[in-house]
Amino acid sequence: MDPFAHFETLLAETRLDGRYRVFVELERIVGAFPRALWHGPGGVAKEVTVWCSNDYLGMGQDPAVLGAMHEAIASNGAGAGGTRNISGTNRHHVALETELAALHGKDAALLFTSGWISNLASLGTLGKLLPDCAIFSDALNHNSMIEGIRRSDAERFIFRHNDIADLEAKLRSVDPARPKIIAFESVYSMDGDVAPIAQICDLADRYGALTYLDEVHAVGMYGATGAGIAQREGVAHRVTLIEGTLAKAFGVMGGYVAGPALLIDVIRSFADSFIFTTSLCPHLAAGALAAVRRLKEDANLRDRQQANVDRLKHLLRANGFNLGATESHIIPLLIGDAHLCKETSAFLLDRHAIYVQPINYPTVAVGQERLRITPTPAHSEHDMQALLAALIDARTALSSGAAPLRDAA
Amino acid sequence: MDPFAHFETLLAETRLDGRYRVFVELERIVGAFPRALWHGPGGVAKEVTVWCSNDYLGMGQDPAVLGAMHEAIASNGAGAGGTRNISGTNRHHVALETELAALHGKDAALLFTSGWISNLASLGTLGKLLPDCAIFSDALNHNSMIEGIRRSDAERFIFRHNDIADLEAKLRSVDPARPKIIAFESVYSMDGDVAPIAQICDLADRYGALTYLDEVHAVGMYGATGAGIAQREGVAHRVTLIEGTLAKAFGVMGGYVAGPALLIDVIRSFADSFIFTTSLCPHLAAGALAAVRRLKEDANLRDRQQANVDRLKHLLRANGFNLGATESHIIPLLIGDAHLCKETSAFLLDRHAIYVQPINYPTVAVGQERLRITPTPAHSEHDMQALLAALIDARTALSSGAAPLRDAA
Ligand SMILES: Cc1ncc(COP(=O)(O)O)c(C=O)c1O
Ligand SMILES: Cc1ncc(COP(=O)(O)O)c(C=O)c1O
Repeated sequence: MDPFAHFETLLAETRLDGRYRVFVELERIVGAFPRALWHGPGGVAKEVTVWCSNDYLGMGQDPAVLGAMHEAIASNGAGAGGTRNISGTNRHHVALETELAALHGKDAALLFTSGWISNLASLGTLGKLLPDCAIFSDALNHNSMIEGIRRSDAERFIFRHNDIADLEAKLRSVDPARPKIIAFESVYSMDGDVAPIAQICDLADRYGALTYLDEVHAVGMYGATGAGIAQREGVAHRVTLIEGTLAKAFGVMGGYVAGPALLIDVIRSFADSFIFTTSLCPHLAAGALAAVRRLKEDANLRDRQQANVDRLKHLLRANGFNLGATESHIIPLLIGDAHLCKETSAFLLDRHAIYVQPINYPTVAVGQERLRITPTPAHSEHDMQALLAALIDARTALSSGAAPLRDAA
Repeated sequence: MDPFAHFETLLAETRLDGRYRVFVELERIVGAFPRALWHGPGGVAKEVTVWCSNDYLGMGQDPAVLGAMHEAIASNGAGAGGTRNISGTNRHHVALETELAALHGKDAALLFTSGWISNLASLGTLGKLLPDCAIFSDALNHNSMIEGIRRSDAERFIFRHNDIADLEAKLRSVDPARPKIIAFESVYSMDGDVAPIAQICDLADRYGALTYLDEVHAVGMYGATGAGIAQREGVAHRVTLIEGTLAKAFGVMGGYVAGPALLIDVIRSFADSFIFTTSLCPHLAAGALAAVRRLKEDANLRDRQQANVDRLKHLLRANGFNLGATESHIIPLLIGDAHLCKETSAFLLDRHAIYVQPINYPTVAVGQERLRITPTPAHSEHDMQALLAALIDARTALSSGAAPLRDAA
């Protein structure tokens, strides 16, 4: 067979299905967030308002964060120069790990080059090293957790999304003597709904399971010091391992897991995807440390974000848009058709200088296509009104097409 | 079973085997490379000479690289703010991808957050999407390639390290109609020997296989413009895909793959580990771009590195140390015992302020323990003499122990 012909066909199919991805080339501008320059196909740059960034609090342009990065680059240079074990452990890594452990009230934390790798490494290693381990995984868990569980070769039990009864049934079905891990998220990345953490911890206690909580879309944004939803609900001490990213609310890049010293040491000692890769640049750890500290001390950005979130949800719902079951800063505007989703996004960009990426398969299931809107503290009332007007315009202009922008059910 | 008790036992075993890893905490100092501050267990900092960095050319402190990073941070901020598809594609990514494609003489290139992910994503995706694919993998391939092949679920044929006859036998054993990929490295990371790339390409032509070449330990350092060993041998155009890192000779972090536009588009469109993670910080791409350009135009650092490599190999061999079959800048000093390897490293650090990390299992096979020495252009004749004297001292001091530092065979 000819690999090239085969791949041509595969890509042609994604085009037909409306899920071929064309990346929007941006130029972020410090001080102008959420505005950015869009470098379009014609080679012309145009200023747009970004409504789909995961730099949720604008920490990617925060002076304390940038200052810490500049300083660390000037004194310690660019890269780490090695894996953590081979000359790649730096003072900034150690300081950030100490801070993250304290943030989550855990013994220890371990840094990775991304949140994706954190999940792959942690679940992959614990599930593999525990003999006959059973992993209970929420049906909407992120790809990185799924990959970690897959990598572990542990038996996987998928429970219905946020469904405590189903989780309990699955736990009950497994031999009490087997080691168990329950893996789930706090804020779900595409729907914005929130897991019943306390109830899951109750079940974990009852059935002797470890709990593994992905707080990637919550750290920095929830809880008194920005430690996430588990902190907000007062249950962080009941969760065995908390995983987070440095790339969203903390504005930089990298990931981590925090938990009991022994488990962190096991991941550190045995995870291939941690061992065999150059460590995070020291200055990224320094920048993230500044972000964590800033958001620990100051709730102002969190409060302003939530106020904007409430306001925008109100505006959109009052105008008949279907936002699903979100309970967080993630606002999915459900469209349900890949082509219409792409067209809506293109319409907003071309006509209204508003950038909201269409979210299609495989990021969400087919039929679940959406615009995923993320208000930040930096969006103004004027920005929100402009977004609303543009969405209404798109609904009118495009509803003559294949499918209307879906109304509130 | 009690997971904690189980893990205690596991870690106790690694301690007994001499392969429990204790990270050496460093503080790199711009302008002083290869000197760095070692923050030892007692809390005291001590200046040491680093002999095991993969910042092979010292680009991690190069003014052009640091300048580009400072500038990009000041204008574009810290993180990318999203996955490549969701607001995370920036001008600097696109510029670097264009430059890397040109460096390797390929249509296109794709960035990842690390070289580890490059291999996982590329091999994992191509091997998975090609029906009934057979992947031929060198026995000493890096963990990240092994993980990619594993992830692909393709059938794997491991050929003896750098053994053309064995590779041909394995290729011949497989149905000619099946799609095939040969995956190998140019400079092998732990032994420093070099693959017979042209002969492997001959076999690929004869048996209709794609070739996938990891040049992680070669890019920046070999070939007229630093494109790697394939460039030096004049065979880059014969290799289908070339994978590299931005974290070693280029001094920053991140990874990439370069090749035919169609294959790059397939990886871009289907690789989970590319799709579901925040993209590289724009300023890291800007820094790496400066490094690639600098090393493309200026062979001086490469030449000085090779001169130091030749000199140190001569000094060590003349003094009876076994360096194995290295043909590159990677100098393995074979020890063959985990405990002695650790002791030697500790002795060098404590007594001589020289840091060379012991390389034990799983990075090398048991019995293959070594010090892995990497001379850079920044090491002086004095540094080399000091290293030699320290190694001789260690051999004398420690040879009364369990095993002597192994002599040249
Ligand atoms: C729930 C969840 N976990 C983990 C990740 C990966 O984090 P990172 O972007 O740091 O790789 C993401 C998204 O990127 C996510 O949505
Ligand atoms: C041969 C080889 N490939 C890939 C990698 C991974 O590269 P990175 O450190 O950029 O993840 C390494 C080492 O780290 C390596 O030795």
